[in-house]
Amino acid sequence: MNTHTITAQSSPNIAFIKYWGNRDNTMRLPANGSISMNLDGLFTRTSVTFNASAQTDSLLINNKPVTGPGLTRVSYILDLVREMAKINERAEVKSENNFPAGAGIASSASAFAALALSASKAAGLNLSEPELSVLARRGSGSASRSIPAGFVEWQMGSNEKDCFAFSIAPVDHWNLVDCIAVVSAAHKKTGSTEGHALAGTSPLQNARVEDAPRRLEICRNAILKKDFEAFAAIIEHDSDIMHSVMMTSNPPLMYWQAATVGIFHEVRAWRAGGLPVGYTVDAGANVHVLCLGEKAKEVEKRLRELPGVENVLVAGVGDAAKIVS
Amino acid sequence: MNTHTITAQSSPNIAFIKYWGNRDNTMRLPANGSISMNLDGLFTRTSVTFNASAQTDSLLINNKPVTGPGLTRVSYILDLVREMAKINERAEVKSENNFPAGAGIASSASAFAALALSASKAAGLNLSEPELSVLARRGSGSASRSIPAGFVEWQMGSNEKDCFAFSIAPVDHWNLVDCIAVVSAAHKKTGSTEGHALAGTSPLQNARVEDAPRRLEICRNAILKKDFEAFAAIIEHDSDIMHSVMMTSNPPLMYWQAATVGIFHEVRAWRAGGLPVGYTVDAGANVHVLCLGEKAKEVEKRLRELPGVENVLVAGVGDAAKIVS
Repeated sequence: MNTHTITAQSSPNIAFIKYWGNRDNTMRLPANGSISMNLDGLFTRTSVTFNASAQTDSLLINNKPVTGPGLTRVSYILDLVREMAKINERAEVKSENNFPAGAGIASSASAFAALALSASKAAGLNLSEPELSVLARRGSGSASRSIPAGFVEWQMGSNEKDCFAFSIAPVDHWNLVDCIAVVSAAHKKTGSTEGHALAGTSPLQNARVEDAPRRLEICRNAILKKDFEAFAAIIEHDSDIMHSVMMTSNPPLMYWQAATVGIFHEVRAWRAGGLPVGYTVDAGANVHVLCLGEKAKEVEKRLRELPGVENVLVAGVGDAAKIVS
Repeated sequence: MNTHTITAQSSPNIAFIKYWGNRDNTMRLPANGSISMNLDGLFTRTSVTFNASAQTDSLLINNKPVTGPGLTRVSYILDLVREMAKINERAEVKSENNFPAGAGIASSASAFAALALSASKAAGLNLSEPELSVLARRGSGSASRSIPAGFVEWQMGSNEKDCFAFSIAPVDHWNLVDCIAVVSAAHKKTGSTEGHALAGTSPLQNARVEDAPRRLEICRNAILKKDFEAFAAIIEHDSDIMHSVMMTSNPPLMYWQAATVGIFHEVRAWRAGGLPVGYTVDAGANVHVLCLGEKAKEVEKRLRELPGVENVLVAGVGDAAKIVS
């Protein structure tokens, strides 16, 4: 094969109907379907070069060499690509995020989506969007949702091949904005790969999973109809259900901090007062406050005034993963 | 009948395995069994006088006349007593709490336990402890648990007659102390009678109820064996499960405030540091921090230093409801 470098870019996403727990941990087949939106302006950019003279895969993240479990997880995806492309070359992988690690935005979704696209292309493959989504999923479940554009649903599927994400509405469908209130977390958190494995220890996880089709339908319809009231109610409900499972697992995972719950009350009071806002929280303490685009400045301003809010990041609806060079 | 006044006294209780949701709202037959401890030093004292010349029941709470729904709920219990005693006289009821209404301690448990005892005795009845517990339950479910002494279990029962509470360990069995961190609540809360009726709207309530026998057994054993580590873990788990149901009901009931969650993290950090403490929260924002008696001063001191804590009440294990005059 020709040795050349492919660079791909992908955005993180915020889930409105959450992914928590797998029916197959190795394959990352989720216990339930999920819905998300890509976050515009935030991205991981990843370059992959297969090199016949390299002895091992190598990984630079933000210009720092990474070895150990981080490299192993990347090599696992590279192995899948090599198998599909029937090549043996080791790869040099360079990855950069334009959002700081300390910003509390999980980078695994954008990282594995960008890796799936750049590595497969560098290996000479031309994977379809579903195939890319499946490949990204093997590295990080939520990465499957960072492959397609705009508003995305990740279907459970019945097997490893049809468990992928697809766009349910394009970027310009609805001018939603995510104002991410970054909250100081004094206590260390459990990584989400370990967290997923704990989901089944909660007495509430089965109920969460069984009820998921109802929540998916409400959320999908709210997005398609641009019904903000219904949207706000369902994303808060779903987020609270996921955190219910987390905090009742064994050991318990209490990702919320005091400021997190303080923001919940404020967001609901703002909505009751006529400002279209709704919250959702991933596996961390930060609160994603979704609003209509024309209210983003106002929401950002209000969030910055709240106790415990260290920073506010603002992101609109993001595009699909794409090749940039 | 002779007209004379009977005064009874009863303590509130704190539930370790929670009561939330009824299988029969009118009869207040709970969806699951529960376990609690009476709170020493806090009490409602209630006097009842049946008076042949009175035209209607009357109610004074803390020297203020109460009419409307408050009086109706008391008359409902008085009607049950009149029916059992085969009398027709209306009653004068005077009730006082030695804890302030603003302290955030629910008074309905101690109030209906004291009313059941004083009213039945004033009507010439000599009810057994289970019969008193059943009668108190008709006014407020958790009042059933304020009739027996010390550590109490309220069994689901199979019908209205065997759905009562009984002591599982006496007052002096274990020197537990409840340090109640009173947290400012800026937002109004839903009363627990209305809250119980919402329990079934949460997709998590059935799972909570189905899992209750497991939690009851762990808690009962921890109390009987005085195993504080197991006790702390199960009361936190059960409290978090109840609040999971509350916050995912429709409409959602988010009783926790920012300070509530801040205290959770502190309590768990203290326990990890060797201080035997565990938290539980009722239908409100206050955090009940249970500890061994010899650590109560230290726990109270630490709680008073936390942000958002307005006051700390301290209560040991309380006695049964009793006649005081």
